[in-house]
Amino acid sequence: MKTGVLYNIGVGPGDPELLTLKAVRIMRECPVIAIPQRKKEDCVAYQIAVQAVPEIAEKPCLCLHMPMTKDKNVLEACHKGAVKILEETLCQDQDVALLTLGDSTVYATALYLNERVKQDGIETCMVNGIPSFCAVAARLNLPLVSGAEQLHIIPASYQIEDALKLSGVKVLMKAASKMGDVKQTLLEGGYRTKMVERCGMDGERLFESTEEIPEDAGYYSLLIVRDGEKSE
Amino acid sequence: MKTGVLYNIGVGPGDPELLTLKAVRIMRECPVIAIPQRKKEDCVAYQIAVQAVPEIAEKPCLCLHMPMTKDKNVLEACHKGAVKILEETLCQDQDVALLTLGDSTVYATALYLNERVKQDGIETCMVNGIPSFCAVAARLNLPLVSGAEQLHIIPASYQIEDALKLSGVKVLMKAASKMGDVKQTLLEGGYRTKMVERCGMDGERLFESTEEIPEDAGYYSLLIVRDGEKSE
Repeated sequence: MKTGVLYNIGVGPGDPELLTLKAVRIMRECPVIAIPQRKKEDCVAYQIAVQAVPEIAEKPCLCLHMPMTKDKNVLEACHKGAVKILEETLCQDQDVALLTLGDSTVYATALYLNERVKQDGIETCMVNGIPSFCAVAARLNLPLVSGAEQLHIIPASYQIEDALKLSGVKVLMKAASKMGDVKQTLLEGGYRTKMVERCGMDGERLFESTEEIPEDAGYYSLLIVRDGEKSE
Repeated sequence: MKTGVLYNIGVGPGDPELLTLKAVRIMRECPVIAIPQRKKEDCVAYQIAVQAVPEIAEKPCLCLHMPMTKDKNVLEACHKGAVKILEETLCQDQDVALLTLGDSTVYATALYLNERVKQDGIETCMVNGIPSFCAVAARLNLPLVSGAEQLHIIPASYQIEDALKLSGVKVLMKAASKMGDVKQTLLEGGYRTKMVERCGMDGERLFESTEEIPEDAGYYSLLIVRDGEKSE
């Protein structure tokens, strides 16, 4: 049976102009769009993509329920349901463009779906987007990493003390839910921190030092941390 | 005095379709192009960009001599010379698009030029490109990093033994010059390795295990390393 291809498309972190030519072409060519959200209106990746490629609004959109939870049973049920929905369309030989915020290979929920659809013998393809940590460095007009420095990307909703001791540049992602603790740890360690909240989106805010970081920062906040005797 | 803007443009790792809409627009709008190489023919970033935006071939191109050396005096002299060339054009109120392979914020030679031009009070702007490590994961159709995993980007021309012990996914960049040693270290540690050489360029090659890695791999080789009892 001939099946369609599942394209996992990274749409970048916010600015629609950061979409790649390839992402734009494939969204135009795919007859069906899919999003990891129940409604288009709530899906940041969709809102970015539709600004760059307005015609996707005219295409059928598969809305997949992918809640943010660490409950394995709930996740398993949702992934299974989402794969079923995707495969129904793919098995009708229709290509699907599944939209992801940032890059499709970096901490994307869609990665789990990609692996399962692949395992079921259906062709899949990843299309890169600009990852948020690169966009944040560009927004700050600063190098992310240079020379012999190492770069460490740390999902900060877990333990960060040990990660901060790593040599080189540290990027803390998903720190919002415990920003008070993160800020305290950074202050005590004398790190130099820059932060961007909602990079490239409405309501974007830049913070140039650890002291400036608000404890009520939103979900789309990313910190770039360097060692230093004190914060700049 | 009104001056032009220096745009640092990441052109991605090889596939011209991975250029962003923003990079394409700015290359079209800038009257002058600059490359970190003596000749267009030798400049991979230029060769990628000109495929996506053929009209840059008609624009004047500043060819900056930026040799790959660790000799600080040579580097200092070259950076100074390159900045002088860029600023001559910028001070005539002409915008310049300086092309960089991959992302402009990640290990780019152009970062040094950007900092100096900024210090001289001239406006600069970074335009992201897809970093090579994201493109390699997409090419392999595999997650780069997911869930609670950390991601470590390691310039492998230096010591790598300690870096390999880090928890999570390790990306080794610039390993080519000592690939024999790197391969030996990976084999002894029982790591699972995937490698792509010349991702998205002519002569691209994929290697699915540590054992397959050729010791004569070229400069544009990137390894994704995971812990494991043995190589896949």
